[in-house]
Amino acid sequence: MDQARYGDVIVIDALEYNNWDRALFEETREAGITCVHVTCASWEGTLPALENVGAWYPIFKEHEDLILHVERPSDVLRAKAEGKTGVILGFQNGSPLENNLSLVEAFHRLGVRIIQLTYNNQNAIGGGCYEANDPGLSRFGREVVREMNRAGILIDLSHSGEQTCLNAIAASLKPVAITHANPASFHPAHRNKSDRVLQALAESGGVLGFVLYPHLIGGPGVPLETFCDMVSSTADRIGIDHVGFGSDLTLGWPEEHVRWLRMGRWTHTETLGPATPDHPGWPDWPEWFQSPGGFRNLFDGLRRKGFSDQELSKVMGGNWLRLFEETFESG
Amino acid sequence: MDQARYGDVIVIDALEYNNWDRALFEETREAGITCVHVTCASWEGTLPALENVGAWYPIFKEHEDLILHVERPSDVLRAKAEGKTGVILGFQNGSPLENNLSLVEAFHRLGVRIIQLTYNNQNAIGGGCYEANDPGLSRFGREVVREMNRAGILIDLSHSGEQTCLNAIAASLKPVAITHANPASFHPAHRNKSDRVLQALAESGGVLGFVLYPHLIGGPGVPLETFCDMVSSTADRIGIDHVGFGSDLTLGWPEEHVRWLRMGRWTHTETLGPATPDHPGWPDWPEWFQSPGGFRNLFDGLRRKGFSDQELSKVMGGNWLRLFEETFESG
Repeated sequence: MDQARYGDVIVIDALEYNNWDRALFEETREAGITCVHVTCASWEGTLPALENVGAWYPIFKEHEDLILHVERPSDVLRAKAEGKTGVILGFQNGSPLENNLSLVEAFHRLGVRIIQLTYNNQNAIGGGCYEANDPGLSRFGREVVREMNRAGILIDLSHSGEQTCLNAIAASLKPVAITHANPASFHPAHRNKSDRVLQALAESGGVLGFVLYPHLIGGPGVPLETFCDMVSSTADRIGIDHVGFGSDLTLGWPEEHVRWLRMGRWTHTETLGPATPDHPGWPDWPEWFQSPGGFRNLFDGLRRKGFSDQELSKVMGGNWLRLFEETFESG
Repeated sequence: MDQARYGDVIVIDALEYNNWDRALFEETREAGITCVHVTCASWEGTLPALENVGAWYPIFKEHEDLILHVERPSDVLRAKAEGKTGVILGFQNGSPLENNLSLVEAFHRLGVRIIQLTYNNQNAIGGGCYEANDPGLSRFGREVVREMNRAGILIDLSHSGEQTCLNAIAASLKPVAITHANPASFHPAHRNKSDRVLQALAESGGVLGFVLYPHLIGGPGVPLETFCDMVSSTADRIGIDHVGFGSDLTLGWPEEHVRWLRMGRWTHTETLGPATPDHPGWPDWPEWFQSPGGFRNLFDGLRRKGFSDQELSKVMGGNWLRLFEETFESG
């Protein structure tokens, strides 16, 4: 298995949106992924998010030979030592919090460790990256940021709007994450991030996870080398301590499931997100990143770019582990 | 009883936030109130709002000698003819819709006829009047406005922010309501409305309900005559067809309940809303408006200001009835 290939290097994928099953857990372990952040809510309110979180407990039990639930940073080290994949439960939307501040700690107790404040659209917390107007953090949003700091949940801003990103970075007492996005200067897309946001993220100690989702890299034809150039130049710009990966892999879903991500239940009108009418479904992925095994190509590609062992260790997962150590503790 | 005093005039109170019981239904009927809009949700999500709506069905049955459920404008006329008070079920927040467009028609079927888009704070639909930044209607908010138009639910903007009010008035295909607010030019308060909003409301055929809530009129010491002067001058400015009343009476609640309205569950930090630290609880009401019986003072006060029978009929309830006729029908 590929754990050997990576040696002591911890490989963390800060977002995979897969339709998980045992075969995929096996593939992920074989690919040497030490830890992966999975999604328990995109548009869900409190009750269905609770159900989705609860559904993971028997999964952890049934597949305990392959995966374990990461609630503390030390669980990532345990996964590495035991040759398993650690799984971090997260939400890609603050919608499960509805407008109830007490639910932050409740979801922490349930084992959730990462919450993205907004998902494409506005919610009670802030603005989304597809909104024409992003007001930044709301009154409730400011409370949520501080409460996530206190309760020990990492703030994720991947699908949030520009002003909400800037406000959250400034308001948070702990560093935050953009688990899956690229610099907009590499590829313009609503979901990619401005230099201003990336600079503020890095200055506050946060981490950007470079995303492989085809619409955010310029399509499946982008060469590995071009992508690695972007990783390298971004690391030069914002610092090698502030970069990692969040592939946003979407394996195992039927074609129609992509509509849920784009339309949730908020519209009855066909909405394509970043897709185009001639190719409205799931995008095609680059041949060098089709599965968790693609991390080997990133690893080799960055080494060819001249990344040192220490730099590789940071970008493959070390920076995420440090961020988890700084944020998962409740105060 | 006072139904006689009002003759053919239909009296509609477009918002009463009371802790209802039989004694209050009796008092309301005795006061000659033909129809009242009550609140089934302030901060609630879908499930508790559904519970609150459902709790009214046995209340309608138990007190059918005093009240009836208004689902069509004709139900208001029936209440008048039978000497009862018609009750319109409404939400003061779009929070029960969460981010689910299909819930608009579902709540219409359940008998809800008025929904305020936002309540003080931002939600998935738009901005609230206490937010520093109001982005206007969100992507979901624009869908909700059109769906409320279609499903037959009146849009209320009383606690919404300036830009959300302007956007909703412009986006709605039917006239909308501000059920309970005053012109900010009469008394400056986050919840009172700018001339720009009031002008746009009236031009689109909507109706403003003058509110008696003490913090929105300048305190309990404001004379009835001063209040009636404001009603008169506002009617002159935006048109006699675009004004009514929404008292915001808050009878029957324990002292601590006011904290729910201000803080919901979105903050753990004491928040006073429009109150002051020396008088943080429920405000004192003017001696001329302590209960539904206070409508007699408004009626008499406006007559003294020279309102004609026709003008009185419009402002006491005729304009609301017209607005209900224009908006309660599903398409």
